[in-house]
Amino acid sequence: MVRHKNIYEKELVMENEKSFTGITQIEPGVIRIRGYDIADLMEKKGFAEVIFLLWKGELPTPAEAKMMEAILVSSVDHGVTPPSSLATRVVVSGGNPLNAAIAGGILTIGESHGGAIEQSARILQEWAKKGDDSASIAQELVKQMKQTGLRLPGYGHRLHKIDPRTVKLFDLANRLNFTGKHIKLSLEVEKLLTTSSGKTLPINVDGAIAAVISDMGFDWRLGKAFFIISRCAGLVAHAYEEATRFKPMRKLGPGDHEYDGPARREV
Amino acid sequence: MVRHKNIYEKELVMENEKSFTGITQIEPGVIRIRGYDIADLMEKKGFAEVIFLLWKGELPTPAEAKMMEAILVSSVDHGVTPPSSLATRVVVSGGNPLNAAIAGGILTIGESHGGAIEQSARILQEWAKKGDDSASIAQELVKQMKQTGLRLPGYGHRLHKIDPRTVKLFDLANRLNFTGKHIKLSLEVEKLLTTSSGKTLPINVDGAIAAVISDMGFDWRLGKAFFIISRCAGLVAHAYEEATRFKPMRKLGPGDHEYDGPARREV
Amino acid sequence: MVRHKNIYEKELVMENEKSFTGITQIEPGVIRIRGYDIADLMEKKGFAEVIFLLWKGELPTPAEAKMMEAILVSSVDHGVTPPSSLATRVVVSGGNPLNAAIAGGILTIGESHGGAIEQSARILQEWAKKGDDSASIAQELVKQMKQTGLRLPGYGHRLHKIDPRTVKLFDLANRLNFTGKHIKLSLEVEKLLTTSSGKTLPINVDGAIAAVISDMGFDWRLGKAFFIISRCAGLVAHAYEEATRFKPMRKLGPGDHEYDGPARREV
Amino acid sequence: MVRHKNIYEKELVMENEKSFTGITQIEPGVIRIRGYDIADLMEKKGFAEVIFLLWKGELPTPAEAKMMEAILVSSVDHGVTPPSSLATRVVVSGGNPLNAAIAGGILTIGESHGGAIEQSARILQEWAKKGDDSASIAQELVKQMKQTGLRLPGYGHRLHKIDPRTVKLFDLANRLNFTGKHIKLSLEVEKLLTTSSGKTLPINVDGAIAAVISDMGFDWRLGKAFFIISRCAGLVAHAYEEATRFKPMRKLGPGDHEYDGPARREV
Repeated sequence: MVRHKNIYEKELVMENEKSFTGITQIEPGVIRIRGYDIADLMEKKGFAEVIFLLWKGELPTPAEAKMMEAILVSSVDHGVTPPSSLATRVVVSGGNPLNAAIAGGILTIGESHGGAIEQSARILQEWAKKGDDSASIAQELVKQMKQTGLRLPGYGHRLHKIDPRTVKLFDLANRLNFTGKHIKLSLEVEKLLTTSSGKTLPINVDGAIAAVISDMGFDWRLGKAFFIISRCAGLVAHAYEEATRFKPMRKLGPGDHEYDGPARREV
Repeated sequence: MVRHKNIYEKELVMENEKSFTGITQIEPGVIRIRGYDIADLMEKKGFAEVIFLLWKGELPTPAEAKMMEAILVSSVDHGVTPPSSLATRVVVSGGNPLNAAIAGGILTIGESHGGAIEQSARILQEWAKKGDDSASIAQELVKQMKQTGLRLPGYGHRLHKIDPRTVKLFDLANRLNFTGKHIKLSLEVEKLLTTSSGKTLPINVDGAIAAVISDMGFDWRLGKAFFIISRCAGLVAHAYEEATRFKPMRKLGPGDHEYDGPARREV
Repeated sequence: MVRHKNIYEKELVMENEKSFTGITQIEPGVIRIRGYDIADLMEKKGFAEVIFLLWKGELPTPAEAKMMEAILVSSVDHGVTPPSSLATRVVVSGGNPLNAAIAGGILTIGESHGGAIEQSARILQEWAKKGDDSASIAQELVKQMKQTGLRLPGYGHRLHKIDPRTVKLFDLANRLNFTGKHIKLSLEVEKLLTTSSGKTLPINVDGAIAAVISDMGFDWRLGKAFFIISRCAGLVAHAYEEATRFKPMRKLGPGDHEYDGPARREV
Repeated sequence: MVRHKNIYEKELVMENEKSFTGITQIEPGVIRIRGYDIADLMEKKGFAEVIFLLWKGELPTPAEAKMMEAILVSSVDHGVTPPSSLATRVVVSGGNPLNAAIAGGILTIGESHGGAIEQSARILQEWAKKGDDSASIAQELVKQMKQTGLRLPGYGHRLHKIDPRTVKLFDLANRLNFTGKHIKLSLEVEKLLTTSSGKTLPINVDGAIAAVISDMGFDWRLGKAFFIISRCAGLVAHAYEEATRFKPMRKLGPGDHEYDGPARREV
């Protein structure tokens, strides 16, 4: 047995000559996800619950399942302008199949687009470990950020002053009793960022997801995954619309896409 | 107004100088998916239901929602050996972020891996139009395939003789009253493929999804999308396992991955 | 030994339990490309010559080498507007590394963007087999295209009426004695497309590359590869410019990119 | 005019409402790369020279051109086992077009595969600024690396003790008078790594390219680009071999690919 470094962590892990996996067991006639027969999962559980199972190793409680659904719904789409929508449409417009278009869109989801979830969750998870006094930890964190000149990911949005997704996520987290020290720290930081600068810097949807998944116990390294799978749903819609309503190689930019879908309606 | 051809269809569509989109309406403080406020969807609907909304334009009935969940659960993962798992792990192993790894995995989902859903749905939708006599249509279809030497996508699996996913999908479709002429045609074809050749060629999970989504009214051009978003869940788990349990640049092949996860358990 | 179908061809090929490769031989201290020691190639041959070696299996003659250089230079860049430039910049703008950006750009190179090389070369290679009378074959080809309503790839350009790349490629092919039956067929077709429709449809750069590589003996299945590796050079420049001159997540569209580089100068 | 941070640098750059580009000028009948007419470049310059022009803004001298050719030849291929070859083949094997396969291969080129060029060049460029006494700077650098526990990228190879590419690159740099303070620093570090640890850690091909391109004046942020475009040549060969010699969805791993190409031969 030798000890090596892995990619994200640069920490030591065990190497094994034989490869292994703890995700899915495959035999003729058998597919078991984390120990559960696929047919049982199909019968009794939903997609969001099985995503939770795959990423955390255990099935969610009903409260965890509801929170998971809401997180995954929150980021499904944000119109034609984000880099991911534009890249997906541009790949379709070049005359390519759906999988290439979705891959192109997902490639854009980096540090500046969706990546705030990962970075914000990392910071929240590192600082929340320091104790239970969220207010003091927030002050220390904001002070350090100012000294190093770094910007805290997960705050501020170019378009939405009040983001309906953030409001709903914290509302649900509260009702479902997920509000722990990561959400608290996140909200304490928001107060300081608001008061210490001239303009407000409210928590955005990335920051809200980061705080909620941290209180749900997810590793920050999975932060981008929530955005990727959620946005995947919208990217398919963009690819399909581009492929069926427009000619190839049209001029495709982020501006001036008039909305011609259904008017506002009640769920 | 000019008439042009789009990518998939090669049919004529309208060109418009101004671009438009019917998917999502974005304004400050407002995000509406197909007309529904995002916060209402987060409160009242699940991820699978919103995927349905994005791809079909309308919210699903409870029966459609249950069928959608089961389809999306069916393809979440199939272990380390499929091209998509391997590519995702190889991208991680080269020292890359999660989005690049998922994009790499999705790139493999082509004609021979997951693509059978699209092709099978296309054939079923084209042939089911010919009438209500599934048995005769199936005979004609199989006859034509034999004459042209083409293989019908969606039948046969290298590992599973009886695929638990296929059984459960048809079982659910039956109980939820989705069994229409596409599923019937698909089953009639299965009978002929079984009897006309020496070995059986049962419908595989791709073929089953193709038949069910066709009876649910989805365009075959969206066929791969169900597999892409479903498998995305498993690819994240593979990327995370590779990144946290193994050293970079290890020898990564499809064979000899011992399962060391939880033993079989009940949902 | 079993016979199977491969992907592109759908023809039968041999399957072998053991895998094999005819490209590169690797041993400790040894790297041989198609039989040549890498250090000898580095000493005596250029990049374009080694690309030729990798793709055709043999080193080029001096005339083939010159033609190869000119083909690869011809498609290095076409500004910010093509889908590939836009996708590369959008991936950078989302906060991603260079390899993800180049991959995003290459993903756009499909049937409608660069793909004409592959399709045009396929058609030229299939029809040039029919004989030496280019004029008659061209008439038959154009007639069939009109009957089936298909458009011949490789003719017409949205911007350039006379494309300087096409002129130079045919000029060089002529001087280097590569003008064989594929180029002749391509030019005969151009005459017919010009006269049979109201407006002229001159051979574009994709069509010219298709004709020249066909006369050089390249398989049409490699058609896109010339465009991919050539454009890769320009995509790197776009990624670098986007990363070093612009802020992340700016509005990025195909229009209104003012050129502020060097004025026209002589080589 | 506002000042913002860009992606790589996190330094301030100017934002401009109007977009601009200094790469290529496009007008009807006109394509000028960094000011040079495309037809003149096709007539008088080779692919490697135009890559140099695109990435540095100026045409290379004959010595720079020869060095550029050798660098680009050095990394064209390393057999079936590297992540990039494997990913490209796996994408083909799933039934996808060439551009998707090459994109999949390029996606693997991260921190642990090819990324050493970028990181090594960054370190060399940062430390070489400190003065002309390469030996002292090397000692300080190695000391700091040991203290922080970091590993210097660009040293050591799992297979080649003496890498013929490294030898040839330094030999050519020497003969062409490119050996400046980056190569010197790189070689001084190699001496220390050799003596201070039990086993030798010779400069590998990534480290050699990093040193040479630094002495040629290239920004380290372009480090991966040399590997990406060079390896692109080999990836095309792998995609083509996979597509034409093997059936889809075969078991594809990094081991046991017997070489069945041409025997060793002289250039």
